[in-house]
Amino acid sequence: MPTPIEFYFDFSSPYSYIASEQIEDLAARFARTVQYKPILLGAVFKVAGSAPLTELYAPKARYSVRDFARSAHCAGVPYQHPSRFPIASLAAKRGVVWLQQHQPKLAVPFIHAIYRAFFVDDRNISDAAVVGDIAREVGIDPDEFAAGVQQLETKERLKSEVDQAIAAGVFGAPAIVVDGELFWGNDRLPQVERWLEKGPF
Amino acid sequence: MPTPIEFYFDFSSPYSYIASEQIEDLAARFARTVQYKPILLGAVFKVAGSAPLTELYAPKARYSVRDFARSAHCAGVPYQHPSRFPIASLAAKRGVVWLQQHQPKLAVPFIHAIYRAFFVDDRNISDAAVVGDIAREVGIDPDEFAAGVQQLETKERLKSEVDQAIAAGVFGAPAIVVDGELFWGNDRLPQVERWLEKGPF
Repeated sequence: MPTPIEFYFDFSSPYSYIASEQIEDLAARFARTVQYKPILLGAVFKVAGSAPLTELYAPKARYSVRDFARSAHCAGVPYQHPSRFPIASLAAKRGVVWLQQHQPKLAVPFIHAIYRAFFVDDRNISDAAVVGDIAREVGIDPDEFAAGVQQLETKERLKSEVDQAIAAGVFGAPAIVVDGELFWGNDRLPQVERWLEKGPF
Repeated sequence: MPTPIEFYFDFSSPYSYIASEQIEDLAARFARTVQYKPILLGAVFKVAGSAPLTELYAPKARYSVRDFARSAHCAGVPYQHPSRFPIASLAAKRGVVWLQQHQPKLAVPFIHAIYRAFFVDDRNISDAAVVGDIAREVGIDPDEFAAGVQQLETKERLKSEVDQAIAAGVFGAPAIVVDGELFWGNDRLPQVERWLEKGPF
Protein backbone atom coordinates (compact mmCIF):
# COMPACT_ATOMS: atom_id res chain seq x y z
CA MET A 1 0.00 0.00 0.00
CA PRO A 2 1.57 3.31 -1.01
CA THR A 3 2.20 5.78 1.82
CA PRO A 4 0.26 9.07 2.05
CA ILE A 5 1.82 12.26 0.75
CA GLU A 6 2.67 14.48 3.71
CA PHE A 7 1.79 18.10 3.13
CA TYR A 8 3.28 20.51 5.67
CA PHE A 9 1.61 23.89 5.45
CA ASP A 10 0.91 27.20 7.14
CA PHE A 11 -2.24 29.18 6.48
CA SER A 12 -0.13 32.33 6.03
CA SER A 13 1.86 30.80 3.13
CA PRO A 14 0.58 31.72 -0.37
CA TYR A 15 2.54 28.94 -2.05
CA SER A 16 1.06 26.42 0.41
CA TYR A 17 -2.41 27.67 -0.49
CA ILE A 18 -1.73 27.38 -4.23
CA ALA A 19 -0.33 23.86 -3.78
CA SER A 20 -3.22 22.85 -1.48
CA GLU A 21 -5.61 23.47 -4.38
CA GLN A 22 -3.73 20.92 -6.50
CA ILE A 23 -2.20 18.27 -4.24
CA GLU A 24 -5.28 16.10 -3.72
CA ASP A 25 -5.94 15.70 -7.45
CA LEU A 26 -2.28 14.98 -8.02
CA ALA A 27 -2.20 12.38 -5.23
CA ALA A 28 -5.43 10.74 -6.43
CA ARG A 29 -4.02 10.26 -9.93
CA PHE A 30 -1.38 8.02 -8.35
CA ALA A 31 -3.72 6.32 -5.83
CA ARG A 32 -2.21 8.26 -2.95
CA THR A 33 -3.86 10.16 -0.15
CA VAL A 34 -2.76 13.46 1.37
CA GLN A 35 -1.91 13.84 5.04
CA TYR A 36 -2.19 17.54 5.91
CA LYS A 37 0.28 18.65 8.57
CA PRO A 38 -0.16 22.19 9.92
CA ILE A 39 3.02 23.87 11.14
CA LEU A 40 3.89 27.20 12.71
CA LEU A 41 6.05 28.66 9.98
CA GLY A 42 7.26 31.39 12.32
CA ALA A 43 8.68 28.76 14.67
CA VAL A 44 10.27 26.88 11.76
CA PHE A 45 11.76 30.12 10.38
CA LYS A 46 13.22 30.89 13.81
CA VAL A 47 15.12 27.59 13.79
CA ALA A 48 16.02 27.87 10.09
CA GLY A 49 17.09 31.54 10.23
CA SER A 50 14.49 32.57 7.63
CA ALA A 51 11.76 35.23 7.49
CA PRO A 52 8.54 35.82 5.56
CA LEU A 53 9.27 36.78 1.94
CA THR A 54 7.44 40.09 2.26
CA GLU A 55 9.68 41.10 5.16
CA LEU A 56 12.91 40.64 3.20
CA TYR A 57 14.94 43.09 1.06
CA ALA A 58 12.38 45.39 -0.59
CA PRO A 59 12.92 44.34 -4.24
CA LYS A 60 12.60 40.66 -3.22
CA ALA A 61 9.48 41.41 -1.16
CA ARG A 62 7.88 43.31 -4.07
CA TYR A 63 8.79 40.53 -6.48
CA SER A 64 7.27 37.91 -4.17
CA VAL A 65 3.87 39.62 -4.16
CA ARG A 66 3.93 39.66 -7.98
CA ASP A 67 5.02 36.05 -8.03
CA PHE A 68 2.29 34.86 -5.64
CA ALA A 69 -0.35 36.19 -8.04
CA ARG A 70 1.40 34.91 -11.17
CA SER A 71 1.98 31.45 -9.67
CA ALA A 72 -1.70 31.24 -8.71
CA HIS A 73 -2.73 32.40 -12.19
CA CYS A 74 -0.55 29.74 -13.84
CA ALA A 75 -2.11 27.08 -11.60
CA GLY A 76 -5.64 28.29 -12.37
CA VAL A 77 -6.19 29.11 -8.69
CA PRO A 78 -8.05 32.31 -7.66
CA TYR A 79 -5.84 34.67 -5.65
CA GLN A 80 -6.12 38.09 -4.12
CA HIS A 81 -3.21 39.21 -1.94
CA PRO A 82 -4.61 39.65 1.58
CA SER A 83 -4.69 43.15 3.04
CA ARG A 84 -3.21 41.75 6.29
CA PHE A 85 -0.11 39.74 5.48
CA PRO A 86 1.60 37.76 6.90
CA ILE A 87 -0.66 36.85 9.81
CA ALA A 88 -0.77 34.47 12.75
CA SER A 89 -3.37 31.72 12.40
CA LEU A 90 -2.99 29.73 15.59
CA ALA A 91 -6.72 29.15 16.17
CA ALA A 92 -7.19 27.86 12.62
CA LYS A 93 -4.23 25.49 12.91
CA ARG A 94 -5.40 24.22 16.29
CA GLY A 95 -8.76 23.73 14.63
CA VAL A 96 -7.12 21.49 12.04
CA VAL A 97 -5.41 19.24 14.58
CA TRP A 98 -8.59 19.02 16.68
CA LEU A 99 -10.69 18.11 13.64
CA GLN A 100 -8.14 15.55 12.49
CA GLN A 101 -8.58 13.82 15.88
CA HIS A 102 -12.31 14.22 16.40
CA GLN A 103 -14.06 14.89 13.06
CA PRO A 104 -11.51 13.78 10.46
CA LYS A 105 -13.92 14.02 7.51
CA LEU A 106 -14.33 17.75 8.11
CA ALA A 107 -10.64 18.58 8.47
CA VAL A 108 -9.90 18.88 4.74
CA PRO A 109 -12.99 20.97 3.86
CA PHE A 110 -12.07 23.22 6.80
CA ILE A 111 -8.49 23.65 5.52
CA HIS A 112 -9.70 24.67 2.06
CA ALA A 113 -12.34 26.99 3.52
CA ILE A 114 -9.78 28.79 5.71
CA TYR A 115 -7.37 29.16 2.80
CA ARG A 116 -10.04 30.56 0.47
CA ALA A 117 -11.35 32.88 3.16
CA PHE A 118 -7.85 34.35 3.47
CA PHE A 119 -6.50 34.29 -0.10
CA VAL A 120 -9.72 34.89 -2.04
CA ASP A 121 -12.12 36.73 0.29
CA ASP A 122 -9.57 38.66 2.38
CA ARG A 123 -11.16 37.56 5.66
CA ASN A 124 -9.15 37.99 8.85
CA ILE A 125 -8.33 34.38 9.73
CA SER A 126 -6.15 35.49 12.65
CA ASP A 127 -9.41 36.32 14.46
CA ALA A 128 -10.76 33.27 16.36
CA ALA A 129 -14.35 34.48 15.81
CA VAL A 130 -13.85 34.51 12.04
CA VAL A 131 -12.31 31.02 12.25
CA GLY A 132 -15.41 29.90 14.20
CA ASP A 133 -17.65 31.36 11.49
CA ILE A 134 -15.76 29.48 8.79
CA ALA A 135 -15.98 26.25 10.82
CA ARG A 136 -19.76 26.68 11.02
CA GLU A 137 -19.94 27.37 7.28
CA VAL A 138 -18.44 23.93 6.54
CA GLY A 139 -20.85 22.19 8.92
CA ILE A 140 -18.84 22.03 12.15
CA ASP A 141 -20.62 22.65 15.43
CA PRO A 142 -19.18 26.03 16.48
CA ASP A 143 -19.41 25.43 20.25
CA GLU A 144 -17.70 22.03 20.09
CA PHE A 145 -15.09 23.52 17.80
CA ALA A 146 -14.40 26.51 20.05
CA ALA A 147 -14.00 24.21 23.05
CA GLY A 148 -11.81 21.76 21.10
CA VAL A 149 -9.43 24.49 19.95
CA GLN A 150 -8.90 25.56 23.56
CA GLN A 151 -8.06 22.07 24.87
CA LEU A 152 -4.57 21.67 26.23
CA GLU A 153 -4.26 18.42 24.26
CA THR A 154 -4.98 20.30 21.01
CA LYS A 155 -2.34 22.91 21.76
CA GLU A 156 0.21 20.26 22.70
CA ARG A 157 -0.56 18.26 19.58
CA LEU A 158 0.10 21.26 17.31
CA LYS A 159 3.37 21.96 19.12
CA SER A 160 4.49 18.38 18.64
CA GLU A 161 3.58 18.59 14.92
CA VAL A 162 5.98 21.53 14.63
CA ASP A 163 8.74 19.70 16.51
CA GLN A 164 8.23 16.67 14.28
CA ALA A 165 8.38 18.84 11.15
CA ILE A 166 11.64 20.45 12.24
CA ALA A 167 13.06 17.01 13.08
CA ALA A 168 12.04 15.84 9.58
CA GLY A 169 14.11 18.66 8.04
CA VAL A 170 11.21 20.92 7.07
CA PHE A 171 12.50 24.50 6.65
CA GLY A 172 9.69 26.18 4.68
CA ALA A 173 6.19 25.67 3.30
CA PRO A 174 4.72 23.91 1.54
CA ALA A 175 6.99 20.97 2.30
CA ILE A 176 5.79 17.87 0.51
CA VAL A 177 7.18 14.52 1.57
CA VAL A 178 6.75 11.54 -0.73
CA ASP A 179 8.21 8.17 0.27
CA GLY A 180 10.43 10.00 2.75
CA GLU A 181 11.73 12.43 0.11
CA LEU A 182 11.27 16.18 0.69
CA PHE A 183 10.12 18.61 -1.99
CA TRP A 184 9.82 22.29 -1.13
CA GLY A 185 7.46 24.74 -2.75
CA ASN A 186 4.43 24.88 -4.99
CA ASP A 187 6.88 25.10 -7.91
CA ARG A 188 8.14 21.60 -7.12
CA LEU A 189 4.78 19.92 -7.81
CA PRO A 190 6.03 18.85 -11.27
CA GLN A 191 8.93 17.08 -9.53
CA VAL A 192 6.50 15.44 -7.10
CA GLU A 193 4.47 14.27 -10.08
CA ARG A 194 7.55 12.87 -11.77
CA TRP A 195 8.51 11.01 -8.58
CA LEU A 196 5.03 9.54 -8.26
CA GLU A 197 5.05 8.50 -11.90
CA LYS A 198 8.56 7.15 -12.34
CA GLY A 199 10.04 6.79 -8.87
CA PRO A 200 13.26 8.25 -7.45
CA PHE A 201 15.45 10.48 -9.65
CA MET B 1 11.45 44.99 -32.79
CA PRO B 2 11.13 42.95 -29.57
CA THR B 3 13.69 43.69 -26.88
CA PRO B 4 16.32 41.13 -25.87
CA ILE B 5 15.77 38.94 -22.83
CA GLU B 6 18.21 40.04 -20.12
CA PHE B 7 19.77 37.12 -18.32
CA TYR B 8 21.59 38.05 -15.11
CA PHE B 9 23.80 35.22 -13.95
CA ASP B 10 26.71 34.14 -11.79
CA PHE B 11 28.96 31.21 -12.73
CA SER B 12 28.64 29.89 -9.17
CA SER B 13 24.84 29.59 -9.44
CA PRO B 14 23.54 26.09 -10.35
CA TYR B 15 20.08 27.36 -11.28
CA SER B 16 21.67 29.97 -13.57
CA TYR B 17 23.63 27.21 -15.27
CA ILE B 18 20.53 25.06 -15.75
CA ALA B 19 18.58 28.03 -17.14
CA SER B 20 21.48 29.06 -19.38
CA GLU B 21 21.18 25.71 -21.16
CA GLN B 22 17.56 26.51 -22.07
CA ILE B 23 17.15 30.27 -22.38
CA GLU B 24 18.48 30.70 -25.93
CA ASP B 25 16.13 28.08 -27.42
CA LEU B 26 13.24 29.59 -25.50
CA ALA B 27 14.09 33.10 -26.70
CA ALA B 28 14.55 31.96 -30.30
CA ARG B 29 11.09 30.37 -30.33
CA PHE B 30 9.69 33.86 -29.79
CA ALA B 31 12.17 35.68 -32.07
CA ARG B 32 14.04 37.13 -29.11
CA THR B 33 17.73 37.26 -28.38
CA VAL B 34 19.46 36.82 -25.03
CA GLN B 35 21.62 39.48 -23.45
CA TYR B 36 23.88 37.78 -20.91
CA LYS B 37 24.67 39.96 -17.91
CA PRO B 38 27.28 38.62 -15.48
CA ILE B 39 26.89 39.75 -11.89
CA LEU B 40 28.78 39.19 -8.67
CA LEU B 41 26.19 37.29 -6.68
CA GLY B 42 28.20 37.80 -3.49
CA ALA B 43 27.90 41.58 -3.88
CA VAL B 44 24.19 41.31 -4.67
CA PHE B 45 23.63 39.01 -1.65
CA LYS B 46 25.44 41.54 0.57
CA VAL B 47 22.96 44.24 -0.43
CA ALA B 48 19.97 41.88 -0.33
CA GLY B 49 20.88 40.22 2.97
CA SER B 50 21.09 36.76 1.40
CA ALA B 51 23.67 33.98 1.35
CA PRO B 52 24.51 31.00 -0.84
CA LEU B 53 21.97 28.18 -0.39
CA THR B 54 24.60 25.71 0.70
CA GLU B 55 25.69 28.03 3.54
CA LEU B 56 22.20 28.23 5.06
CA TYR B 57 20.49 26.09 7.75
CA ALA B 58 21.81 22.54 7.25
CA PRO B 59 18.53 20.85 6.17
CA LYS B 60 17.95 23.61 3.60
CA ALA B 61 21.54 23.36 2.36
CA ARG B 62 21.26 19.57 2.00
CA TYR B 63 17.93 19.91 0.23
CA SER B 64 19.41 22.45 -2.18
CA VAL B 65 22.12 20.08 -3.34
CA ARG B 66 19.46 17.40 -4.02
CA ASP B 67 17.32 19.98 -5.80
CA PHE B 68 20.16 21.24 -8.03
CA ALA B 69 20.60 17.73 -9.40
CA ARG B 70 16.88 17.01 -9.70
CA SER B 71 16.18 20.34 -11.41
CA ALA B 72 18.96 19.67 -13.90
CA HIS B 73 17.64 16.15 -14.49
CA CYS B 74 14.12 17.46 -15.17
CA ALA B 75 15.55 19.97 -17.65
CA GLY B 76 17.63 17.31 -19.39
CA VAL B 77 20.83 19.14 -18.48
CA PRO B 78 23.93 17.20 -17.33
CA TYR B 79 24.92 18.09 -13.77
CA GLN B 80 27.54 17.02 -11.29
CA HIS B 81 27.74 19.01 -8.09
CA PRO B 82 31.20 20.64 -8.05
CA SER B 83 33.67 19.53 -5.39
CA ARG B 84 34.46 23.23 -4.69
CA PHE B 85 31.21 25.10 -4.10
CA PRO B 86 30.38 27.96 -4.05
CA ILE B 87 33.39 29.60 -5.66
CA ALA B 88 34.51 33.04 -6.80
CA SER B 89 34.75 33.37 -10.58
CA LEU B 90 35.94 36.92 -11.09
CA ALA B 91 38.33 36.18 -13.95
CA ALA B 92 35.65 34.29 -15.87
CA LYS B 93 33.12 37.10 -15.42
CA ARG B 94 35.65 39.73 -16.43
CA GLY B 95 36.34 37.53 -19.44
CA VAL B 96 32.65 37.71 -20.37
CA VAL B 97 32.48 41.49 -20.27
CA TRP B 98 35.76 41.81 -22.21
CA LEU B 99 34.54 39.39 -24.89
CA GLN B 100 31.17 41.15 -25.13
CA GLN B 101 33.09 44.34 -25.97
CA HIS B 102 35.85 42.97 -28.18
CA GLN B 103 34.87 39.55 -29.56
CA PRO B 104 31.10 39.42 -29.08
CA LYS B 105 30.60 36.26 -31.13
CA LEU B 106 32.77 34.29 -28.72
CA ALA B 107 31.13 35.53 -25.52
CA VAL B 108 28.23 33.06 -25.53
CA PRO B 109 30.31 29.96 -26.39
CA PHE B 110 32.69 31.04 -23.61
CA ILE B 111 29.83 31.34 -21.10
CA HIS B 112 28.58 27.82 -21.89
CA ALA B 113 32.09 26.40 -21.81
CA ILE B 114 32.78 27.90 -18.37
CA TYR B 115 29.49 26.62 -17.02
CA ARG B 116 30.03 23.09 -18.34
CA ALA B 117 33.61 23.06 -17.10
CA PHE B 118 32.31 23.81 -13.60
CA PHE B 119 29.02 21.90 -13.41
CA VAL B 120 29.86 18.90 -15.59
CA ASP B 121 33.64 18.46 -15.51
CA ASP B 122 34.33 19.79 -12.00
CA ARG B 123 37.12 22.08 -13.22
CA ASN B 124 38.28 24.86 -10.90
CA ILE B 125 36.95 27.95 -12.68
CA SER B 126 38.10 30.20 -9.84
CA ASP B 127 41.65 29.64 -11.17
CA ALA B 128 42.55 32.22 -13.84
CA ALA B 129 44.83 29.70 -15.58
CA VAL B 130 41.91 27.24 -15.95
CA VAL B 131 39.74 30.09 -17.28
CA GLY B 132 42.48 30.88 -19.82
CA ASP B 133 42.56 27.21 -20.89
CA ILE B 134 38.80 27.21 -21.41
CA ALA B 135 39.04 30.45 -23.42
CA ARG B 136 41.61 28.82 -25.69
CA GLU B 137 39.42 25.72 -26.06
CA VAL B 138 36.63 27.85 -27.56
CA GLY B 139 39.01 29.59 -29.98
CA ILE B 140 39.98 32.73 -28.06
CA ASP B 141 43.59 33.93 -28.22
CA PRO B 142 44.78 33.25 -24.67
CA ASP B 143 47.27 36.12 -24.51
CA GLU B 144 44.80 38.73 -25.74
CA PHE B 145 42.23 37.29 -23.34
CA ALA B 146 44.57 37.37 -20.34
CA ALA B 147 45.49 40.98 -21.10
CA GLY B 148 41.86 41.98 -21.65
CA VAL B 149 40.72 40.49 -18.36
CA GLN B 150 43.33 42.58 -16.54
CA GLN B 151 42.32 45.91 -18.11
CA LEU B 152 41.00 48.52 -15.71
CA GLU B 153 38.16 49.19 -18.14
CA THR B 154 37.10 45.52 -17.96
CA LYS B 155 37.09 45.55 -14.17
CA GLU B 156 35.12 48.82 -14.06
CA ARG B 157 32.63 47.52 -16.59
CA LEU B 158 31.85 44.42 -14.50
CA LYS B 159 31.44 46.58 -11.41
CA SER B 160 28.99 48.83 -13.23
CA GLU B 161 27.06 45.76 -14.44
CA VAL B 162 26.60 44.76 -10.79
CA ASP B 163 25.50 48.27 -9.78
CA GLN B 164 23.04 48.32 -12.68
CA ALA B 165 21.66 44.91 -11.68
CA ILE B 166 21.08 46.01 -8.08
CA ALA B 167 19.43 49.22 -9.33
CA ALA B 168 17.18 47.07 -11.54
CA GLY B 169 15.98 45.16 -8.47
CA VAL B 170 17.96 41.97 -9.08
CA PHE B 171 18.35 40.06 -5.78
CA GLY B 172 19.34 36.56 -6.94
CA ALA B 173 20.29 34.51 -9.97
CA PRO B 174 19.25 33.74 -12.56
CA ALA B 175 17.23 36.93 -12.90
CA ILE B 176 15.47 37.03 -16.23
CA VAL B 177 14.03 40.34 -17.40
CA VAL B 178 11.50 40.33 -20.24
CA ASP B 179 9.96 43.62 -21.37
CA GLY B 180 11.05 45.16 -18.07
CA GLU B 181 9.44 42.39 -16.00
CA LEU B 182 11.61 40.39 -13.60
CA PHE B 183 11.44 36.61 -13.22
CA TRP B 184 13.65 34.88 -10.68
CA GLY B 185 14.95 31.35 -10.95
CA ASN B 186 15.27 28.48 -13.36
CA ASP B 187 11.88 27.33 -12.09
CA ARG B 188 10.28 30.47 -13.50
CA LEU B 189 11.14 29.62 -17.14
CA PRO B 190 7.55 28.35 -17.69
CA GLN B 191 6.31 31.79 -16.58
CA VAL B 192 8.80 33.49 -18.93
CA GLU B 193 7.48 31.29 -21.73
CA ARG B 194 3.90 32.19 -20.92
CA TRP B 195 4.77 35.91 -20.90
CA LEU B 196 6.51 35.61 -24.28
CA GLU B 197 3.56 33.69 -25.72
CA LYS B 198 0.60 35.61 -24.32
CA GLY B 199 1.96 38.84 -22.87
CA PRO B 200 1.62 40.25 -19.34
CA PHE B 201 -0.32 38.27 -16.73
